[in-house]
Amino acid sequence: MPPAGRTLFGQVTFVGIGLINGSLARDVRRLGLADHLVATARTRDTLDRACALDLVDTATTDLASAVRDADLVVLGVPVGVCGALAAAIAPHLRADAIVTDVGSVKASVIDAVAPSLDMRRFVPGHPVAGTEKSGPDAAIDRLFDGRWCILTPDARTDPAAVERVAGLWRAVGSNIELMNAAHHDRVLAITSHLPHLLAFNMMTAADGLESVLKGEVLKYAAGGFAGFTRIAAADPVMWRDVFLQNKAALLEVLSHYVEDLVRLQRAVRCDEADTLLESFQSARSIRLEVLRMGQDYKRQATETPNKVHASV
Amino acid sequence: MPPAGRTLFGQVTFVGIGLINGSLARDVRRLGLADHLVATARTRDTLDRACALDLVDTATTDLASAVRDADLVVLGVPVGVCGALAAAIAPHLRADAIVTDVGSVKASVIDAVAPSLDMRRFVPGHPVAGTEKSGPDAAIDRLFDGRWCILTPDARTDPAAVERVAGLWRAVGSNIELMNAAHHDRVLAITSHLPHLLAFNMMTAADGLESVLKGEVLKYAAGGFAGFTRIAAADPVMWRDVFLQNKAALLEVLSHYVEDLVRLQRAVRCDEADTLLESFQSARSIRLEVLRMGQDYKRQATETPNKVHASV
Repeated sequence: MPPAGRTLFGQVTFVGIGLINGSLARDVRRLGLADHLVATARTRDTLDRACALDLVDTATTDLASAVRDADLVVLGVPVGVCGALAAAIAPHLRADAIVTDVGSVKASVIDAVAPSLDMRRFVPGHPVAGTEKSGPDAAIDRLFDGRWCILTPDARTDPAAVERVAGLWRAVGSNIELMNAAHHDRVLAITSHLPHLLAFNMMTAADGLESVLKGEVLKYAAGGFAGFTRIAAADPVMWRDVFLQNKAALLEVLSHYVEDLVRLQRAVRCDEADTLLESFQSARSIRLEVLRMGQDYKRQATETPNKVHASV
Repeated sequence: MPPAGRTLFGQVTFVGIGLINGSLARDVRRLGLADHLVATARTRDTLDRACALDLVDTATTDLASAVRDADLVVLGVPVGVCGALAAAIAPHLRADAIVTDVGSVKASVIDAVAPSLDMRRFVPGHPVAGTEKSGPDAAIDRLFDGRWCILTPDARTDPAAVERVAGLWRAVGSNIELMNAAHHDRVLAITSHLPHLLAFNMMTAADGLESVLKGEVLKYAAGGFAGFTRIAAADPVMWRDVFLQNKAALLEVLSHYVEDLVRLQRAVRCDEADTLLESFQSARSIRLEVLRMGQDYKRQATETPNKVHASV
């Protein structure tokens, strides 16, 4: 039984039970934030793993029965299928059920679910947290602790529903930020979608090399390449959907990026040493700001801003 | 006193005492691989830190006295100054002194030092290891353990000198690879120089944003951006030199990269979902190969290839 007085929802149903929903389920269960946890997924294999890992109480491939008694439904699926899933679950939802999602793109998800769901009780959400792994086995405790969770309600959204979803994320340690969906998509295009596209593209470049050279690239990956492979190990279907669903913002930041890259390319070609040095010095100062803001969770425990600036 | 029978050199002189030379000094001292360690650097501040950290026995800004009695001189400086430094130390070297370097570019360093040094005893080297930090405070124990050290001797190089330098790197845990300098520069352009250029450019892109948006980019850096900031925190002078000294190879891989990027850009614009998915699936398989080869040292302790492939 969950600790008395902390339960925020009766039944929470996770539609999709991979890295994000699985990690949320672990925290909800550990902290006793719900009475009953249900998972549904497309494949029985995924649900079997979720059960083996004891992520939820009930697991079923039957969408209708999974959501029927839910107080909260969390869509944790590739953003490209949110619309179809919303249409599939809508007839089976309780009238007072709240639906939220964890997708990395917000405007397109809102548009996709709007024809099916009661938009007063749909709270678009995006926990800015994760690893490059995926699937139920990738789920870990405290993934969201100290991270931001961005919610992008609009004029239709019931503030009480927003508050209940925010309360759940706060309970698992997240800080809540409210934001316009289009603005979210623009910010995330820079901080997340573009870095992933660049990393995927680096792998494509390596894959296209003749095999001897490719073997050497993998062998000497420690020089910087390995960091890109880490990002590029992320779920292919999820990212295909993110790029296509956030097309406009992504293409805009990408075109800026390519312009800047061509400028650096020209600086190298023309031996413009000062241009390069100035660029790289300001790059270093941005690293310092990210560390100050505590948002590099892979390093912040061991790294201090001072050390980064040692002896430039 | 170092443990008997393990000493590989009498005096080792480090020209420059930052991340790489400092880390090598730590290992050489800890393992007793030399009788006497000397450091020289451009600034007294750097040497004071090296002394405070007890990296070496003797520290001096006077190049001539630093190298006079050296059995081995290790150049650990930005590759753009190797030529000038070689000219400065050459008159003061013992006839049997071996000189090596740790630069990330090899062909240009060889060309730069050739007019000054006895090339029979110059062993061009590149330990493929590091962190994004720099300066003597960044030096750590066992940085080279399990990493590759690439040596690029040519027809002039005395095999006995190569073997003595190789022995030192093996003693600190590295695996030795011999390679043609031009080939080294091509491989490293892909595995290291291009990733760094892309990361630096990402910071430039962020720096150019209006200030509100820039603040948000830093705030939500955990989405992928933080990994780029980490790479882009590397020493600006060192990297300016690397890019300019490996211009031809870098510009070649960069132009391929941009071609591939434009192809992905087009796939996003034209909703070519299958093109994107296929690219990202092969990207994931490259991650798996890097892990199998044990060259992602930031992660290999906790990550298994199986987990990465969970539920694609």
